[in-house]
Amino acid sequence: MTPGRPVPPPLAKPVTLDSSEHRSGTLAAAYGATSPDSGLVPLTVARRTPTADDVEIAIEFCGLCHSDVHATRGEWRVPPYPLVPGHEIVGRVTRVGAGVQEFAPGDRVGVGCMVDSCRECESCLEGLEQYCERGNVGTYGAADPRHGDDITQGGYSTSVVVDRRFVLRIPEALDPAAAAPLLCAGITTYSPLRYFDVEEGDSVGVVGLGGLGHMAVKIAKAMGADVTVFTTSESKFEAARELGADHVVLSKDADAMEAANRSIDVIIDTVAAPHDLNPYFRTLRLDGALFQLGLPADDMPPVSPGLLIRRRLAYAGSLIGGIEETQEMLDFCAEHGVVSDIEIVGAGQLNEAYDRMVAGDVKYRFVLDTATLQEPSERADA
Amino acid sequence: MTPGRPVPPPLAKPVTLDSSEHRSGTLAAAYGATSPDSGLVPLTVARRTPTADDVEIAIEFCGLCHSDVHATRGEWRVPPYPLVPGHEIVGRVTRVGAGVQEFAPGDRVGVGCMVDSCRECESCLEGLEQYCERGNVGTYGAADPRHGDDITQGGYSTSVVVDRRFVLRIPEALDPAAAAPLLCAGITTYSPLRYFDVEEGDSVGVVGLGGLGHMAVKIAKAMGADVTVFTTSESKFEAARELGADHVVLSKDADAMEAANRSIDVIIDTVAAPHDLNPYFRTLRLDGALFQLGLPADDMPPVSPGLLIRRRLAYAGSLIGGIEETQEMLDFCAEHGVVSDIEIVGAGQLNEAYDRMVAGDVKYRFVLDTATLQEPSERADA
Repeated sequence: MTPGRPVPPPLAKPVTLDSSEHRSGTLAAAYGATSPDSGLVPLTVARRTPTADDVEIAIEFCGLCHSDVHATRGEWRVPPYPLVPGHEIVGRVTRVGAGVQEFAPGDRVGVGCMVDSCRECESCLEGLEQYCERGNVGTYGAADPRHGDDITQGGYSTSVVVDRRFVLRIPEALDPAAAAPLLCAGITTYSPLRYFDVEEGDSVGVVGLGGLGHMAVKIAKAMGADVTVFTTSESKFEAARELGADHVVLSKDADAMEAANRSIDVIIDTVAAPHDLNPYFRTLRLDGALFQLGLPADDMPPVSPGLLIRRRLAYAGSLIGGIEETQEMLDFCAEHGVVSDIEIVGAGQLNEAYDRMVAGDVKYRFVLDTATLQEPSERADA
Repeated sequence: MTPGRPVPPPLAKPVTLDSSEHRSGTLAAAYGATSPDSGLVPLTVARRTPTADDVEIAIEFCGLCHSDVHATRGEWRVPPYPLVPGHEIVGRVTRVGAGVQEFAPGDRVGVGCMVDSCRECESCLEGLEQYCERGNVGTYGAADPRHGDDITQGGYSTSVVVDRRFVLRIPEALDPAAAAPLLCAGITTYSPLRYFDVEEGDSVGVVGLGGLGHMAVKIAKAMGADVTVFTTSESKFEAARELGADHVVLSKDADAMEAANRSIDVIIDTVAAPHDLNPYFRTLRLDGALFQLGLPADDMPPVSPGLLIRRRLAYAGSLIGGIEETQEMLDFCAEHGVVSDIEIVGAGQLNEAYDRMVAGDVKYRFVLDTATLQEPSERADA
């Protein structure tokens, strides 16, 4: 949480729901894009009436992920418009279907990057729904096969309806706004650290100090690791130390990189622009691994197989985390007091926030306060 | 073993040793290079008198590894000349030092790619001498710090003296000539398969069907794996099946590659020329790994991080194996009847054999019969 910024109170009342309003569902206020260059504008989205397995959530906060920028601007692919982004959702349950035992109205819950998966493939059966062989159903911009192939709409909105299997419990110990980014930035960094079995005394490197990178530092520290932040800018040294980093290395300083030779067990690389990984591989110990989490639009410079061979290193990838592991991460963060450093914005500031994200001007995550969204009934276009 | 080719008898007698001959050691007949373009010519090398920890070996056979070609021709770096290559050495013990309990004259033994290491670093203490942090001492062309920084000379020779810690037992059940390539090609493929914990029913892919590739197929089959060979040439289909491959895929056939999508747990890539790995990553299942064992002189095409991310894949390297693991591999091969398919050559055929290796004209490993080397005392230049 950015010091000095008050957290707005939770929504005073649940969103009004009326199943007769739209396609047997309800309308929710939202912000989204209507074209690649529309920016974010007020929208109304239809939310389905909860089925037996559904949980209806009054959204309190939604984190702004850099991928929201790419998606709404059509920088990866042309998405279905209108598109309401947002997959770091925290709110309170307003209604549950008859088959839902694990959640009750009033519970604080979260939704991350997925709202469904095939539930049948090997990955899904292992609780690794993010790697569903048929493709998981993204929280926004994805066709939802179990619900008439409707296009999902994300969390820059006052409510959402999600199958209970993809709803997380947010421990009350966590500040709800600062917990929102855990649903993407948190789990995306937690999962590879767990997969690599990071424990007390291991050495973790973090490349890039943005939304993901700052979570990686906090989570690795909470796991008991010795943490080294690699950064291209000396201006980030102090911030890295404030987050808990034990060491900070200026990656363009060849001597500093050489001094870090063979000092790290696992690197979490959060940089989404093409960059040369070989200097980082040289900082890894025998059997080390570098997990790349960012997805550059252009080719990466080639990795040197000689480096991989001479220390039995791995260049690896990792995608968010499964639902069970996301719950584990939330409980871990509650236990260790880990949340994201955030700056809360209102709906009217979303476009400016996007520009600031692109410029790297945020420490470290914007979170939308959905109390600032106009209800459809309050708007002229409703 | 190539059918129809008789295995020459073992050396009739141990090499004559006389510690007064040269630097308190002995002279051994050898073949090696004197410059990048000398080809292989008869040479005489000095072997030290065994110290307390040493084992003196009368070499019977030595495999010809493709790296011998690169090294003698100076294609990786300019080596110290004269250079006697050879790191797939099998022979019989002729003498042992006073401190050697585990070997006795007459024992069949082997020497692989290393003859020493620092014995103190973390890697060495873990039995992973190949990853010695100070660099292992290669069997040829390397300065040997415990022996006056003398440059090591390899196995295209009648004898060698090696510290007991780097001498392997060759089970008598193994044909000694066909076992020689296990010391490099065998362990180089065995080690990553073990590191990945390959077991009964796992699916192993092998890229490239040369000296390493054919061992990978045999060893993976012996581990109980389902084996797929990827080859650029339909002409290799039959050979792959003869080696035991369950499936053969023409890697330039996009449909065949698509049909292999998500079918493999681990790939052993033995190709040392630059090639695009992304089509192979697409054949891997969740949590799969591709181990690159060959070291191309030029950059590899870039690996797609998206592929790594979407299936949590690893692009990994692996270097030969430790001494303990090499012994384990030899015992495993004896138990499962695994040896290399070889073509035995005499000293006079070495240069032709090198040209044929470069042309890929060998199934699958040449092995030098050292009985064809002239003793120094028999030569005009002695």
